[in-house]
Amino acid sequence: MLSLNSHPTGNHFLQIPGPSPVPDRLLRAMSLPTIDHRGPEFAQLGRRVIEGMQRIFGTAQPVVIYPASGTGAWEAALCNTLSPGDKVLMYETGHFASLWHRMATRLGLDAELIAAPRADEWLPQAGHWRHGVDADFIEARLREDTQGRICAVCVVHNETSTGVTSDIRAVRAAIDAARHPALLIVDTISGLASADYRHDEWGVDVTVSGSQKGLMLPPGISFNALSQRALEASRAARLPRAYWDWEEIVAMNSTGYWPSTPNTNLLYALAEAIEMLEAEGLDHVFARHQRWAAGVRAAVTAWGLPIQCADARCHSPVLTGVITPAGVDADALRRVIHARFDLSLGTGLGKLKGRMFRMGHLGNINDLTLIAMVAGVEMGLRIQGVPLAGSGVEAAMQVFRETH
Amino acid sequence: MLSLNSHPTGNHFLQIPGPSPVPDRLLRAMSLPTIDHRGPEFAQLGRRVIEGMQRIFGTAQPVVIYPASGTGAWEAALCNTLSPGDKVLMYETGHFASLWHRMATRLGLDAELIAAPRADEWLPQAGHWRHGVDADFIEARLREDTQGRICAVCVVHNETSTGVTSDIRAVRAAIDAARHPALLIVDTISGLASADYRHDEWGVDVTVSGSQKGLMLPPGISFNALSQRALEASRAARLPRAYWDWEEIVAMNSTGYWPSTPNTNLLYALAEAIEMLEAEGLDHVFARHQRWAAGVRAAVTAWGLPIQCADARCHSPVLTGVITPAGVDADALRRVIHARFDLSLGTGLGKLKGRMFRMGHLGNINDLTLIAMVAGVEMGLRIQGVPLAGSGVEAAMQVFRETH
Amino acid sequence: MLSLNSHPTGNHFLQIPGPSPVPDRLLRAMSLPTIDHRGPEFAQLGRRVIEGMQRIFGTAQPVVIYPASGTGAWEAALCNTLSPGDKVLMYETGHFASLWHRMATRLGLDAELIAAPRADEWLPQAGHWRHGVDADFIEARLREDTQGRICAVCVVHNETSTGVTSDIRAVRAAIDAARHPALLIVDTISGLASADYRHDEWGVDVTVSGSQKGLMLPPGISFNALSQRALEASRAARLPRAYWDWEEIVAMNSTGYWPSTPNTNLLYALAEAIEMLEAEGLDHVFARHQRWAAGVRAAVTAWGLPIQCADARCHSPVLTGVITPAGVDADALRRVIHARFDLSLGTGLGKLKGRMFRMGHLGNINDLTLIAMVAGVEMGLRIQGVPLAGSGVEAAMQVFRETH
Amino acid sequence: MLSLNSHPTGNHFLQIPGPSPVPDRLLRAMSLPTIDHRGPEFAQLGRRVIEGMQRIFGTAQPVVIYPASGTGAWEAALCNTLSPGDKVLMYETGHFASLWHRMATRLGLDAELIAAPRADEWLPQAGHWRHGVDADFIEARLREDTQGRICAVCVVHNETSTGVTSDIRAVRAAIDAARHPALLIVDTISGLASADYRHDEWGVDVTVSGSQKGLMLPPGISFNALSQRALEASRAARLPRAYWDWEEIVAMNSTGYWPSTPNTNLLYALAEAIEMLEAEGLDHVFARHQRWAAGVRAAVTAWGLPIQCADARCHSPVLTGVITPAGVDADALRRVIHARFDLSLGTGLGKLKGRMFRMGHLGNINDLTLIAMVAGVEMGLRIQGVPLAGSGVEAAMQVFRETH
Repeated sequence: MLSLNSHPTGNHFLQIPGPSPVPDRLLRAMSLPTIDHRGPEFAQLGRRVIEGMQRIFGTAQPVVIYPASGTGAWEAALCNTLSPGDKVLMYETGHFASLWHRMATRLGLDAELIAAPRADEWLPQAGHWRHGVDADFIEARLREDTQGRICAVCVVHNETSTGVTSDIRAVRAAIDAARHPALLIVDTISGLASADYRHDEWGVDVTVSGSQKGLMLPPGISFNALSQRALEASRAARLPRAYWDWEEIVAMNSTGYWPSTPNTNLLYALAEAIEMLEAEGLDHVFARHQRWAAGVRAAVTAWGLPIQCADARCHSPVLTGVITPAGVDADALRRVIHARFDLSLGTGLGKLKGRMFRMGHLGNINDLTLIAMVAGVEMGLRIQGVPLAGSGVEAAMQVFRETH
Repeated sequence: MLSLNSHPTGNHFLQIPGPSPVPDRLLRAMSLPTIDHRGPEFAQLGRRVIEGMQRIFGTAQPVVIYPASGTGAWEAALCNTLSPGDKVLMYETGHFASLWHRMATRLGLDAELIAAPRADEWLPQAGHWRHGVDADFIEARLREDTQGRICAVCVVHNETSTGVTSDIRAVRAAIDAARHPALLIVDTISGLASADYRHDEWGVDVTVSGSQKGLMLPPGISFNALSQRALEASRAARLPRAYWDWEEIVAMNSTGYWPSTPNTNLLYALAEAIEMLEAEGLDHVFARHQRWAAGVRAAVTAWGLPIQCADARCHSPVLTGVITPAGVDADALRRVIHARFDLSLGTGLGKLKGRMFRMGHLGNINDLTLIAMVAGVEMGLRIQGVPLAGSGVEAAMQVFRETH
Repeated sequence: MLSLNSHPTGNHFLQIPGPSPVPDRLLRAMSLPTIDHRGPEFAQLGRRVIEGMQRIFGTAQPVVIYPASGTGAWEAALCNTLSPGDKVLMYETGHFASLWHRMATRLGLDAELIAAPRADEWLPQAGHWRHGVDADFIEARLREDTQGRICAVCVVHNETSTGVTSDIRAVRAAIDAARHPALLIVDTISGLASADYRHDEWGVDVTVSGSQKGLMLPPGISFNALSQRALEASRAARLPRAYWDWEEIVAMNSTGYWPSTPNTNLLYALAEAIEMLEAEGLDHVFARHQRWAAGVRAAVTAWGLPIQCADARCHSPVLTGVITPAGVDADALRRVIHARFDLSLGTGLGKLKGRMFRMGHLGNINDLTLIAMVAGVEMGLRIQGVPLAGSGVEAAMQVFRETH
Repeated sequence: MLSLNSHPTGNHFLQIPGPSPVPDRLLRAMSLPTIDHRGPEFAQLGRRVIEGMQRIFGTAQPVVIYPASGTGAWEAALCNTLSPGDKVLMYETGHFASLWHRMATRLGLDAELIAAPRADEWLPQAGHWRHGVDADFIEARLREDTQGRICAVCVVHNETSTGVTSDIRAVRAAIDAARHPALLIVDTISGLASADYRHDEWGVDVTVSGSQKGLMLPPGISFNALSQRALEASRAARLPRAYWDWEEIVAMNSTGYWPSTPNTNLLYALAEAIEMLEAEGLDHVFARHQRWAAGVRAAVTAWGLPIQCADARCHSPVLTGVITPAGVDADALRRVIHARFDLSLGTGLGKLKGRMFRMGHLGNINDLTLIAMVAGVEMGLRIQGVPLAGSGVEAAMQVFRETH
């Protein structure tokens, strides 16, 4: 039988910024027997997860659930709302924003990737990857588009490659200020259910998300939350689509079913996750992640290492990126930590390769899990001979001891 | 916590033709902790399932694994090989062939759905749904296409809506006989790992399959097995694609990883399923399904009811469709059986709605499971007052007693 | 990793009269993480299972839960109430009654095993094993004991070796009619939570039971339900005891804890089982087993084979014993059925070895499971060449079809 | 359904000295379907666990496996070898040794509890609870017994209440030096499979152990490992016994079965545990616990708090007891730590109540788990205002960083 044998004793510390550690409750729910996706029992499950996800997204509009990873939901958001050659404005917050831009281009869109320039001593070539979306910069660009050729503005809410959480409300305000008709499409794959997010209140047209981050599920489910404007746009949109097509799914979802076979067992886990999150209360969930993030950042600061996110207003509650000193290979460090302490950290992606690592603070964890993570990193830094200003573990313990 | 409460005692009999009953071993494997999809442990898993699926498909060519249901893999097969407006020839074996045709049309292809006409007393309007693919009919159509405008021939190997298994070797021979360059694209979503299938030997260019049938997994994974000609075609194909794009996936798969996040926990179950199937031996698996199908058909024949598949050469080893007598609502029958005996059967789809039901004989079952299924149907038929010629249970018992 | 590889496909049919098939819900509950048996969370669990078991036994008196199999609870009932050399009257209903008598003798009690003689053509040497407890016979024996030397009357409620369920109310009435002070100690290891049982109402002093039958748990937990008279007797009883001693356990149970380490994970399953049984309603549970037993007996009767229990008033709702024709080795039959159909049946025990097999109809099963069991037995009988009067499967189907 | 709701996020840290955290692999194995304990498949399992446990105990003699907790195996060891009124010599290493003595007395033995006196400033009334067994003290007592009335010497190898591991080899040597015929009976309930133990090589006659410590199972299984002398003694021993009786069990075990119903699902987990331990290698397992214990002791020393075990030769590899400063209620401290950090610690037992807590370092844990535990304790100590000499976390990190 299958076994995961790399972990001689104890449980692995999966502290990448997603897939996050899955609670036993969800793994258990996921292993219930598969049922007939056309039977009466399924309809209850279907409605339960759809309505639950509406509450999680903060929307009264349809939420489309795909048996697909987040990349699929990116594609769905674009191909349901746009036509070949349409112009879209995308903001380069980091690696995932860049990948989304690359996808838009491959799908035949005229995708423009912009970012306000940011000088940076630590990462001279990626200074803008240390900051969030500059809404003024977007507004200025939209004002230039006097003919209204830009069909959509696409931004990443919580950039998983950097640990920067952008202000989506400000982007909405920027579009409104520019009196521009573009749709607002937001990726909060790694933000949903960990960072505060409000689809309707913030005026988002399409929100893209996934299962394997704040929802704490394994990967395999992704989402589009819609607006009425997005649905209207979909009627005119001419990018070819079938699997991703909203119309038939939204129509059939009212009965609790899907046109094609849903991934039933992951929906079990989704129902369970929604129940867990709502039992705790979403506001409590958001506050919990903020507190954890503060503890982890205190550790990084105590070490004397720079946090990838240079703007305190945008620190992600979900993950914290750490820039390693020049000459310290962040991936070699990660390998040592993995081999010695069975702890997985996120790698530096794209422009940050080798200069940065990421600590996730989401999923099925608690204060002690995070202290263990910080300790594992600190031991790894010392083993690699990185000079540290002080004890990160002490700093994190102080935060967790003094806050509640 | 989530529970499935409709089943007061005992286990549900999930005898639809997929999703099939999932073995505990797979549910157990699926509930292992999610690991880092970029870590070293994952690469072993990745290579293991890719190589295993090559053996299951009978191919030395790449197999692409999607976090998606089968419908997604249908789309992947088309959009990787074809360009907008391309002509494809599809054969109407039943409801799923029709849905695939509808998808092709929606994606902007010039899809032609053909079928050799078949007179039928039981189902006058769907006589061709009682037969397999007529290779001669395809050959004749290809011969008409003197300019070689048809880019691909699409057929369904095991039509899940009817229980008809077509001869793919004959289709290949027909294309060759017509000296036509069209690609051969085959859907064996419900056939793979239950019915004999040989991607390379039969000269298939793209095979589409899914996880929730013969592989006995929950839904959520689907596949494209490729050929060199298919890969060449993909370089010229201009249907927009990103999530489904083979090129990047195939390239990255050599390392055991995927470009976007794979659905790790279902891959655990896939690794386990491959191990189970190969421990038994695929030939033994195929023979086992043939024997089961014979037993179930003996029951239907004993009842005096017509089997949906009218051609003994095409009886599916995976499922058996039963036509109900005029005036007997097959769905009312299914509801009674579900309510009284906690047994799920497949509904009649499309043109067969209400006139037919389907019994699955695949997945985690054995002789006694099938006798229980036949008994449940027989009791339901009697409760509904359907006159029966004889005892289906006796007939099935005789087959299972006398064969081994 | 451990796997159970004898079952190539499908689930095993575990139709022995216990351990019974365990519902997935219980297996799932049992696999929750072990908690501190001295922590606050545990006390809730402890109280929950103790109070739940009081409702299941039908008692307001203490129920003692042992981490032990049923044999341990037999010993506990005796050593808590009796002193070395004490006289106990035991009734030989079958093999388990005999084993209990053997235990009493080994513990130093003066145990007398009685049974009203019964002539029987099928089992000349074990005619009394085809009948229940004869309360008049007990009454007569008690009346002879004018000096009141008999300290306890021990009877088996549901004799697992024969499928005979005795009338405990009648035994109580017999003791009362004889105005005898003996304690009434009853074993309902295989009856509890399947057959109607009422500890307080029926005036039982100690009831012995176990987890692996009607409660549907794996083996490993057993019970003593007490009366005030039993508790009083325990104060004077001088058989040495420590692990089994009621006093300290009952005292500590009021807090939700146990003096020694309880088997926590089985208690999880027990809590879940109690919830399942009470959600359905015990009366419904009892009626369900009666209906199942009627269906199974109809099958045996249709085959023309004698049922082990010769008295229709005592047919067990939990299991049915079948006497094989002279010359037919019941164990050879069981082996064929196991090898061919992955179905386990109970062997003939003690005096019945080779002449009888037992079909369990308890645990996580339903109508179709039982039809499958009957079919498996019928196919086995035919394979072994046993002449059958008719179709047992048809008979069982008729019962299950016509009753609800 | 049952859920453990006290843990809002993340996994509980179960750092009591047993039950220890159970690896997922064992929980998973334990949840396999229950099989027929009289069927052919079971015999393989039975033999596998019996032979495996012989290797774990280091013996070629029989190992008896009980469905019972450790207390039951204590009773089994005594009642199989001794007769009413027999004299036994027991050494008071701590609370569990005292409880065992109390049991012996209740069973009707003439049990003498001895301990070499030890002056102690921290625990004036329990100085001897800070030391291991004094073999010279035993030898002197045996030499006084010139008539050879002492039938058995009973000692606890790893005293769970104190964290003191005694030298069993020295006890054997003491008995031999005194030329005394007494049996040597050893409790290593919490030592087996974590601390080095060798039943045959050390000349032990009966070793008592349990499942929920080093074997990492849930509670519910316990063991007696035997010697030829113990088996001989059992033939003459007259304490009444049935459930615990070795003879029938040992005889039947040769076939892979047990006389009464074994707790099958825990045996699944036991088979898995044996496989895990042997895959790692017992010597490696022992060294791993020694290294962990060194890290935890370094933390206690850094805090400036006394370790319960005052003798460095006897420090337990399994748990570390910490004496709290006068005036600091150890249980109030434990409650704060539990409430704030979801971390369970062991309480001070008997004479140590309120003055001491215990940290377990066994079961499914690793370096980071232990750092998290130390951090949880350290934060609790600070919250309670206990003055600390230094950082225990830093000290533990240094050990785990510098050793491998």
